[in-house]
Amino acid sequence: MTDVVHEPRALREACDQLRASDARVGLVPTMGALHDGHLSLVAATREAGATRVVVSVFVNPTQFGEGEDFDKYPRTLEQDVELCRERGVDLVYAPPVDGMYPEGFETHVEVERTTARFEGAHRPTHFRGVTTVVTKLFNAVGPCVAAFGRKDYQQWRVLWRMARDLDMPVEVLGCPIVREPDGLAMSSRNRYLDAGERQRATAIVQGLRAADAAYRDGEREVARLEALARAPVQADFDRIDYIAVVGAESLEPCTGTAGDDVVVLCAAHLGQTRLIDNARLGRDRL
Amino acid sequence: MTDVVHEPRALREACDQLRASDARVGLVPTMGALHDGHLSLVAATREAGATRVVVSVFVNPTQFGEGEDFDKYPRTLEQDVELCRERGVDLVYAPPVDGMYPEGFETHVEVERTTARFEGAHRPTHFRGVTTVVTKLFNAVGPCVAAFGRKDYQQWRVLWRMARDLDMPVEVLGCPIVREPDGLAMSSRNRYLDAGERQRATAIVQGLRAADAAYRDGEREVARLEALARAPVQADFDRIDYIAVVGAESLEPCTGTAGDDVVVLCAAHLGQTRLIDNARLGRDRL
Repeated sequence: MTDVVHEPRALREACDQLRASDARVGLVPTMGALHDGHLSLVAATREAGATRVVVSVFVNPTQFGEGEDFDKYPRTLEQDVELCRERGVDLVYAPPVDGMYPEGFETHVEVERTTARFEGAHRPTHFRGVTTVVTKLFNAVGPCVAAFGRKDYQQWRVLWRMARDLDMPVEVLGCPIVREPDGLAMSSRNRYLDAGERQRATAIVQGLRAADAAYRDGEREVARLEALARAPVQADFDRIDYIAVVGAESLEPCTGTAGDDVVVLCAAHLGQTRLIDNARLGRDRL
Repeated sequence: MTDVVHEPRALREACDQLRASDARVGLVPTMGALHDGHLSLVAATREAGATRVVVSVFVNPTQFGEGEDFDKYPRTLEQDVELCRERGVDLVYAPPVDGMYPEGFETHVEVERTTARFEGAHRPTHFRGVTTVVTKLFNAVGPCVAAFGRKDYQQWRVLWRMARDLDMPVEVLGCPIVREPDGLAMSSRNRYLDAGERQRATAIVQGLRAADAAYRDGEREVARLEALARAPVQADFDRIDYIAVVGAESLEPCTGTAGDDVVVLCAAHLGQTRLIDNARLGRDRL
């Protein structure tokens, strides 16, 4: 039985009850429009020891910038709850915006260095919105473990860093990207794509595969790896925000020669839609 | 028996044990140099239901500005532990600076509006340091209740706001100022005063008493109340940072007529020492 709560106070009571029964609570924070990527996170929290799972569904206005897609972001709560029910999720938390940010709200959490580049540079207030809302969810739910998808690779590193820096008693998992049969990383934003865009969208994973294949063959020159990742995106997308080889932990851009544990990060625009993807070279299944 | 731990990991383990035994944990965050004001906070957490009490002793570098008294701030850990022992404190947490802020630390918590004036205006990075370290302590200790002295009235409001905004599962108590027999608010910084300064230091409480007496007699004109509070400080101190009548909850400066629940905030310099004090007019014992 999946309970659905909308009010912060009801969430607190429900989570206090979960914890009182000695449950190890897992949390999967989402913006809804759930797909198999999200659902893999539910399973991941269980594998990490969670005996009860809470999924939050909240399209968080503070992580959208001016002119971004907050208004049109898909909202499919009924379907989301049904999917959670099928997976045995114990609690869905779907608060209204003014429940999350009551009048007078004035606090934020910020991770500095890890947010400076890439998504943080292109979406200046994005990560502050993410870290603040995730802190609130961690505090309200009290999970032992929380799972995030590695499609948002930088977000995972930012949240991992935040939890560590602030001594939050929660394990922050980064879980493998779940892909469509043709390789496109699952994302709620894929719904924005028309048929032609949907076909062209695979250019990102084609670029990542080319860089990954070269890396597995011994290529370590950063400029070459980036060029391989870039070529198909340049051909099929309308605009590239960034394509960069970075340290997998530090997210510092690699220069010259790529090390043993690197990620290619990519963000690009296809019509009105902005997509991101990435691959840990030589390690991820693409 | 009071345990003393220095390492964050040891703290976590000790607090997990405390909580596992169904204890309600109270936390008293301090910078050490404990006096009766701090010790009243230990009692306050118990009155609020704490069955175990943790006192942290940490002179937090990030809440001191350039040229402030971080280096000379009194450090008296052995005496502090002894005082905690006498009061039955269960655990003293005294981490080293690099235990609190390991290399690569890059996260902060910030409360915006409530920090804008008064202490926040005179000490621009102060509250960010306070809110970040207190968040860490809350996360590491997991208290049900934490107690702060109202001598740092704005700090209490800032932390109360932070806990509420971020859904922290902790009650943030603001406890009455403990005063010396002549009225001086107890503060670790009083140790800086030489004999002459120590005498002159009571000018602040004299000003607060004058404003309070007038308020109790019906005076509501803000300019008049501020002038009464200011006169003795102006006479005996070297420099005033601010003296202001503000709303007790909002900390918004009152203009014209003072309302039903107002506080006079005061900060002023005596030689090398900066002292703060305040009174909730018509309510506090002075």
